[in-house]
Amino acid sequence: MGIRPGAINPNLFQDVDNKLGSLCNLDRKMRKKTINHVLECIEVAKTLKSKDISLWLGDGTNYPGQDDMREKKHRLEDSLKEIYDNLQDDMHILIEYKFFEPAFYNTEMADWGMAYNLCMKLGNRAMVLVDLGHHALGTNIEQIVAYLLDEGKLGGFYFNNKKYADDDLTVGSINPYEFFLIFNELVSAEEDGIKANIAYMIDQCHNLKPKIEEMIQSVENIQKTYAKALIVDRKSLKKFQQDEDIVRAEKIITEAFETDITPLLFKVREEMGVPLNPLEFFRESGYLEKIQRQR
Amino acid sequence: MGIRPGAINPNLFQDVDNKLGSLCNLDRKMRKKTINHVLECIEVAKTLKSKDISLWLGDGTNYPGQDDMREKKHRLEDSLKEIYDNLQDDMHILIEYKFFEPAFYNTEMADWGMAYNLCMKLGNRAMVLVDLGHHALGTNIEQIVAYLLDEGKLGGFYFNNKKYADDDLTVGSINPYEFFLIFNELVSAEEDGIKANIAYMIDQCHNLKPKIEEMIQSVENIQKTYAKALIVDRKSLKKFQQDEDIVRAEKIITEAFETDITPLLFKVREEMGVPLNPLEFFRESGYLEKIQRQR
Amino acid sequence: MGIRPGAINPNLFQDVDNKLGSLCNLDRKMRKKTINHVLECIEVAKTLKSKDISLWLGDGTNYPGQDDMREKKHRLEDSLKEIYDNLQDDMHILIEYKFFEPAFYNTEMADWGMAYNLCMKLGNRAMVLVDLGHHALGTNIEQIVAYLLDEGKLGGFYFNNKKYADDDLTVGSINPYEFFLIFNELVSAEEDGIKANIAYMIDQCHNLKPKIEEMIQSVENIQKTYAKALIVDRKSLKKFQQDEDIVRAEKIITEAFETDITPLLFKVREEMGVPLNPLEFFRESGYLEKIQRQR
Amino acid sequence: MGIRPGAINPNLFQDVDNKLGSLCNLDRKMRKKTINHVLECIEVAKTLKSKDISLWLGDGTNYPGQDDMREKKHRLEDSLKEIYDNLQDDMHILIEYKFFEPAFYNTEMADWGMAYNLCMKLGNRAMVLVDLGHHALGTNIEQIVAYLLDEGKLGGFYFNNKKYADDDLTVGSINPYEFFLIFNELVSAEEDGIKANIAYMIDQCHNLKPKIEEMIQSVENIQKTYAKALIVDRKSLKKFQQDEDIVRAEKIITEAFETDITPLLFKVREEMGVPLNPLEFFRESGYLEKIQRQR
Repeated sequence: MGIRPGAINPNLFQDVDNKLGSLCNLDRKMRKKTINHVLECIEVAKTLKSKDISLWLGDGTNYPGQDDMREKKHRLEDSLKEIYDNLQDDMHILIEYKFFEPAFYNTEMADWGMAYNLCMKLGNRAMVLVDLGHHALGTNIEQIVAYLLDEGKLGGFYFNNKKYADDDLTVGSINPYEFFLIFNELVSAEEDGIKANIAYMIDQCHNLKPKIEEMIQSVENIQKTYAKALIVDRKSLKKFQQDEDIVRAEKIITEAFETDITPLLFKVREEMGVPLNPLEFFRESGYLEKIQRQR
Repeated sequence: MGIRPGAINPNLFQDVDNKLGSLCNLDRKMRKKTINHVLECIEVAKTLKSKDISLWLGDGTNYPGQDDMREKKHRLEDSLKEIYDNLQDDMHILIEYKFFEPAFYNTEMADWGMAYNLCMKLGNRAMVLVDLGHHALGTNIEQIVAYLLDEGKLGGFYFNNKKYADDDLTVGSINPYEFFLIFNELVSAEEDGIKANIAYMIDQCHNLKPKIEEMIQSVENIQKTYAKALIVDRKSLKKFQQDEDIVRAEKIITEAFETDITPLLFKVREEMGVPLNPLEFFRESGYLEKIQRQR
Repeated sequence: MGIRPGAINPNLFQDVDNKLGSLCNLDRKMRKKTINHVLECIEVAKTLKSKDISLWLGDGTNYPGQDDMREKKHRLEDSLKEIYDNLQDDMHILIEYKFFEPAFYNTEMADWGMAYNLCMKLGNRAMVLVDLGHHALGTNIEQIVAYLLDEGKLGGFYFNNKKYADDDLTVGSINPYEFFLIFNELVSAEEDGIKANIAYMIDQCHNLKPKIEEMIQSVENIQKTYAKALIVDRKSLKKFQQDEDIVRAEKIITEAFETDITPLLFKVREEMGVPLNPLEFFRESGYLEKIQRQR
Repeated sequence: MGIRPGAINPNLFQDVDNKLGSLCNLDRKMRKKTINHVLECIEVAKTLKSKDISLWLGDGTNYPGQDDMREKKHRLEDSLKEIYDNLQDDMHILIEYKFFEPAFYNTEMADWGMAYNLCMKLGNRAMVLVDLGHHALGTNIEQIVAYLLDEGKLGGFYFNNKKYADDDLTVGSINPYEFFLIFNELVSAEEDGIKANIAYMIDQCHNLKPKIEEMIQSVENIQKTYAKALIVDRKSLKKFQQDEDIVRAEKIITEAFETDITPLLFKVREEMGVPLNPLEFFRESGYLEKIQRQR
């Protein structure tokens, strides 16, 4: 995982006249206007050397009968085709799905399957973006991640955590084991030689915690979880799976999760010459107070 | 909707040694055994002139680490490929998905997207089967139906109704409006010239109501719902949708749903020379008592 | 159901400093400030002859550890005690519960049980308010309504409808049968002699449909549903229940629901001298255009 | 937590004629028969010196109209009153609730609120039993635990874990953090001087893992989780809560959860003179093979 230029995230609901839809809008003029906005964003991306256009679609309906489901699907396909054809060769379009909200009866891209199928129709540069908060309760997210990795269609993540719906809480704060199991699939695929080009992004709503502190905490949670996934003893895991020894296979997973990974992280941070405890360092640095004074 | 020979539904969990899986079993011998069972079922189908092999897979895991998600997926694809290649040209394999149960951590074919993608890989004779009880709570089922119709991949239904999980209650008994909206998509697609070859089946668990009575009630609910979907004023619906008049467009839908359809059904039954009120007719016929005495 | 003065709904999250809570806030000064705001609202209610203070609490936490669950509960009880003691003898406080949102880890009054228990501690003038959108998916709302009616603690409704979470859609628009079953419990209780003093209110978010039209549609849906509940043949229902004839008992319910109730509503409206079709009347009246011009 | 005689768990659905209910059955004779069965169980409990009658009720309905909701509630109250009056003074009746299943439309004791309210009506010896798998998805279980502890009405636990519904998987296997947060409330209450008399029980369905191994694994998970809850730095937690320092307060919780507790457990086991690694010890002991040979 390296650092790459941020994705460009076009705002498809910029105008009040978008309230009946953007790329799926019944009105051809509204669709065209939205497409043009995305095309402008592609130009911005070129300038900024960003290679990812990340697309979240709020389109959907609130009431049965409001729109024609199949026609809406066709409009979406047509709009995205036009956008896709304007991507640079080395750019990707990352397509996000969401179970519900802001539309409350029908969401145009309601699940990974709809996003995936659309990507298949568009071509190699269209990839699925997984926002961890956009699934029905109970959904096995790590399975979807493994599935998309296997199909070569996982393009990126919006990291966050939820207990109910799209809660946008600190990643790993509500169900850290689930987050670990997601990273476990990422590492497992990598060790099996799957080359994935994944944009890792954080998408949270920092309305209670101080914003920079929550970002530091989020990055720490990601590092911790990634490190734990790296120490899974995959050779033993494979062996116990072959033996159908469920208890021991599971234990390989839980032992990695339960390992205190702090010493390893400290070692890495020491080698990198960065503070061992980023949160404390930030607090003691007085940086926040300084920039607040400057404003 | 005509009557066609029943689908053949192979029982993939016939043996206690299937408890770790059937077509995805880690053990090649177990997979082979299951495949052979399905191949036998295909032979039975030929004899019985049935054209549909309907496949429900209970495979999955109960614990993280129990199996490798990507390998399991490959095993499934390989097993199904072998089955598919043995289908007669005029046969279909109908692939069912299910959110959870009997596996409680990961279900191999957890949603329509996984079933659909597999069908795409297999070929034209592989189609998705929608069991109305196999979705996460809140899922917009009529959207999935419209989606599959649009992609030409809707192969069949297991009709029933649920309030919580795979409750297998009488179809239309818990959420009759949702059931109507599903039929609305079926009729809408038909009127738009989409030719679908759909196997309509009832899959319920009759443990409280008398079995034959519940079947009669189910068929009546289906007829009522289908009839209501037929009377939707699609011309006005289209017009109000174009006008972005959400209130009136919705009203076209609700008015059809709220119409008392009984007179129409009585007329049809009269023309067919069948009892106007099937349930009362059955009760008064004494048929049940007669066959119970015979046993 | 008559018309009564509207309930007064104190806004407990009026200030940005309420973001860590209102009546449960850790800070005694913040609690006191919120209590004072509610006491002012009681004065307003006296002036306006309103007898209902309807209280929705947004308090909760986003992260484990953020607050002490039992202490927070005590703070809430103490705050409400102080408010309750300042109610006029003929006033009610209606206490709302909500599954989640705006807090995403823990909601102070998360379900009917917490609201009910609090009302029991406060006294006779504290009653539970049921917002139809504030339950976990799958929750049997009509059972909660019947339960509260039986305990004499149902104080009011916020009518709306949801498919996913607190969607605030037009009442009866997503699951009309569920709404009918709720009214069925209300009428059943009334016919059994239960005297309930219920505040019926509409709480919807009209962001797509025109506001006044959606209100007219909502009132029509309520009238239709109430009328259907009134024609349930309760004598036969009781008899079939006693006979353990589930099919026929259910049929009594579905037949009332499926009845075309329009003629009855037209008759009532005719006798009242009001327009037979309120929505068309409103549209043709030109009222909206007139007041829009005036603004 | 000490060991006490097991609870007696009457089987209320022992007969096929219970399919329409046990303690809520419409038929007075069926209710009486079920009550008598529980009374017999009380006699058994006396003989076995068990002090807990743990009651799970499968009563409910599958279809609207099947039964009268308020009458059913009264029947339940009457039946339980009769049972309660026959308890010995030092016995408790533990009342379980469940979101759904085996009934699929309405469950008589659907949530903690219904169980709690019933316990309040019965008296001091009636307590609520929390089965971790019996809640709607998303429910904050630790809040319910804290609530019941605060009200002095938490009587016991059935430990297990779920991802979807009542999955009955190994406790702590799906969401170990949630399980830790539950124990955190238990320890927090104990340290605040709340004296609770809680029956800790494991209720799992061991159909894939070997039964004894899964029990050992479960007990280890409980010990680990309890130990982690014991090391929460409650003084700092309280301080950071008072400071409204959400990030640091949360960190106190996560640091305890992330601590490698194995050394502490090893120390305790050493002092107790029991095997350090119970699962390995059991496997190497050959006990299972021995008793299997004996059968």
